[in-house]
Amino acid sequence: MTEQRRVTACLLIIGDEILSGRTRDANLSYLAKWLNGEGVELREARVIPDDAEVIIRTVNEVRAAYDYVFTTGGIGPTHDDITTDCVAAAFGVPLHFNEEAAKQLMARLTGPMTEGRRRMTRIPEGATIIRNPLSGAPGFRLGNVHVLAGIPAVTEAMLETLRGTLSGGRPVRSETLHVFAGESVIAATLLGVQEQFPDVSIGSYPFGHQDRYGANLVLRSPDETRLGEATEALRQALERNGFAPAAGEATPTPEDLV
Amino acid sequence: MTEQRRVTACLLIIGDEILSGRTRDANLSYLAKWLNGEGVELREARVIPDDAEVIIRTVNEVRAAYDYVFTTGGIGPTHDDITTDCVAAAFGVPLHFNEEAAKQLMARLTGPMTEGRRRMTRIPEGATIIRNPLSGAPGFRLGNVHVLAGIPAVTEAMLETLRGTLSGGRPVRSETLHVFAGESVIAATLLGVQEQFPDVSIGSYPFGHQDRYGANLVLRSPDETRLGEATEALRQALERNGFAPAAGEATPTPEDLV
Repeated sequence: MTEQRRVTACLLIIGDEILSGRTRDANLSYLAKWLNGEGVELREARVIPDDAEVIIRTVNEVRAAYDYVFTTGGIGPTHDDITTDCVAAAFGVPLHFNEEAAKQLMARLTGPMTEGRRRMTRIPEGATIIRNPLSGAPGFRLGNVHVLAGIPAVTEAMLETLRGTLSGGRPVRSETLHVFAGESVIAATLLGVQEQFPDVSIGSYPFGHQDRYGANLVLRSPDETRLGEATEALRQALERNGFAPAAGEATPTPEDLV
Repeated sequence: MTEQRRVTACLLIIGDEILSGRTRDANLSYLAKWLNGEGVELREARVIPDDAEVIIRTVNEVRAAYDYVFTTGGIGPTHDDITTDCVAAAFGVPLHFNEEAAKQLMARLTGPMTEGRRRMTRIPEGATIIRNPLSGAPGFRLGNVHVLAGIPAVTEAMLETLRGTLSGGRPVRSETLHVFAGESVIAATLLGVQEQFPDVSIGSYPFGHQDRYGANLVLRSPDETRLGEATEALRQALERNGFAPAAGEATPTPEDLV
């Protein structure tokens, strides 16, 4: 296997509404898959509150630790939307009214440029705009930090405009097998294959309902040859030990499993 | 308002399957509400990979920073279940086979004590067991760290056994108003009331579909008197400015909004 540098990312999910349990995040899973398509590995995500000191400190911590940082939430027009101010403060740069941001925003709206709308047209010095094809108010990229909206449809539309702009490595490929056997009894077999292929990550995800249960076994690697070899080795090892692995994911419903 | 110490918690969601986008976390939102019922405020959540060095470092960082830490995931029988080992390593204590854990586990299973099952009966020295009423394999509490399963039904069953065991403060109460008006135009009114009530957090969460849109305004405080005053002040300020606030959450479906 050729050793390749892994390109890493961290997601900051900003918002009291997530930490209070009011709103369930939907962006992590989407971003993870999107990043993998660009050859970037999501290595961490943090959910943090609408607290300026926490946001500034966290942005500075993670932008030094990862190749890319993405933030979601807190770029709207109200007083609790403080992400733009905090990212500018983290980089120590001022915010300026941005002509292009105003043009993009007002193209989607009717009525005058209110104070709240003007708030959404402030962009940190040195940042480039991330277009929002859905609702106009743009995000921005400053250094390695990408500031996106929090509403999933808008986040996804913004990511669409970023396709091909990151310097990624090879996407991680995955293969899945499943067995109808308890994790406890296949654990030793899994461990043996994992030790034989330390460069392929093997995850075991149990499922079950009453008396029918089993595990989905997910193998992941950017190296397709090694991935194929490990998958075949696992298949053979399971068979040799009396289990009957099958390709693909088992997603049995409770009804299937009765 | 009487100033009260806030009791804080951090959730560590441990698992490659969340960071790859394969599985969507369902525990954060549940834990947040459960903690609020116990008077504890969830202040941060981190999703981290099945990487021993990362888990150990993160556990030590957050257990020093928050009153309570909860972890989910990685306590099963397979090689990728390393949470128990990592939490023990973070505290610098050994793992021991635990008679009580074995009894609780085997009471729910048939067949012999395999190596994989034995793995789930190892508990760090000094920890107390957190019972798993659903599938037997227990979690544990070590210092201020609570180690829970990752499968939501099991996580929730474990939390049920922990009710009343934390030293919490007052639960946060919330009130919700909604207006059918754009956030941009109500932003100044919101800011005015927020400045009048700095101890009550006011969040604005927009909704919309085509031409119909608005915002849910959520006020939060552990002090019911202040919460009531702020809610009334916001209602009056919105009316004064020509908006028509209504109580409760607007959850218009796309059909309602057409």
